[in-house]
Amino acid sequence: MKEVADRLNAVADHLDEHAPAMDQRMVDMWSGEGITRHDPVTGPENAIAPPLHLTGKDDGSVEGEVALGLPYQGPPGHVHGGISALLLDHTLGVANHWAGQSGMTAELTLRYHRPTPLFEPLTVTGEQVAVDGRKIRTTGAITARGEVCVSAEGLFIAKHLPRPR
Amino acid sequence: MKEVADRLNAVADHLDEHAPAMDQRMVDMWSGEGITRHDPVTGPENAIAPPLHLTGKDDGSVEGEVALGLPYQGPPGHVHGGISALLLDHTLGVANHWAGQSGMTAELTLRYHRPTPLFEPLTVTGEQVAVDGRKIRTTGAITARGEVCVSAEGLFIAKHLPRPR
Repeated sequence: MKEVADRLNAVADHLDEHAPAMDQRMVDMWSGEGITRHDPVTGPENAIAPPLHLTGKDDGSVEGEVALGLPYQGPPGHVHGGISALLLDHTLGVANHWAGQSGMTAELTLRYHRPTPLFEPLTVTGEQVAVDGRKIRTTGAITARGEVCVSAEGLFIAKHLPRPR
Repeated sequence: MKEVADRLNAVADHLDEHAPAMDQRMVDMWSGEGITRHDPVTGPENAIAPPLHLTGKDDGSVEGEVALGLPYQGPPGHVHGGISALLLDHTLGVANHWAGQSGMTAELTLRYHRPTPLFEPLTVTGEQVAVDGRKIRTTGAITARGEVCVSAEGLFIAKHLPRPR
């Protein structure tokens, strides 16, 4: 294992030497292709992200499919409850963006209906259900084999009142 | 970047060749030193984990300190809300274990009071507050500079009724 660690450290040193300064890297993350390049759920450039690929649908909701492996394990053979929370928090945010009215998360409630399996296709959905002044309500779920494993309800606060349509 | 990718792929191939079969690896994760070796929050053997080091305190609560870097970013310069949820879900579970009565997460509510800064020491706490039959209630928080950024309330269901003391 020492030889493997040495090889990985050499790669890390090489990347460190050639990477831009931290403040430049933070700017880069928010320019160009934007948040979806680096975020910890859907970002293809973030090693932590599974990544989940979310698609906006015609009915205003977003949906993606993902199978999670060992790094996301909580109970034996099942997804860590906090990882389900991470996926759903992000998906609700993307659903708000897709619906055209985004906000900061104020409250998020997760209900765990049954264990979420590892290594199986999971469907992750999100949908904005109500906008009342600056309050945005959004729901989502993780399903496996057609059954809801985890459901989520979020309250988001918009930075500005929505423009009347 | 291609040369870097080739070097990393060579390491991955080497590890794959020498790793035990998946079912054996899953068993290993749950034997010996147990869950804290691999879980996605505190596990030193999980590249996704920051890792957060939690310590059980004499008052029955658990506490840890961690600073999070770029992979955990949500809003610019701040921790992703779902990462805060991941940390708190896990910390509440550890708090239950420390208090001597664990259960499966049934419901988790997160309240976001202010943005959680990246690159700064965060204090993560958890405490079991009530056990009523099989229902366990546990709370926790992430604080920065002495102010609560995110608070959590969890409802857990014990597998068995607690033994009367």
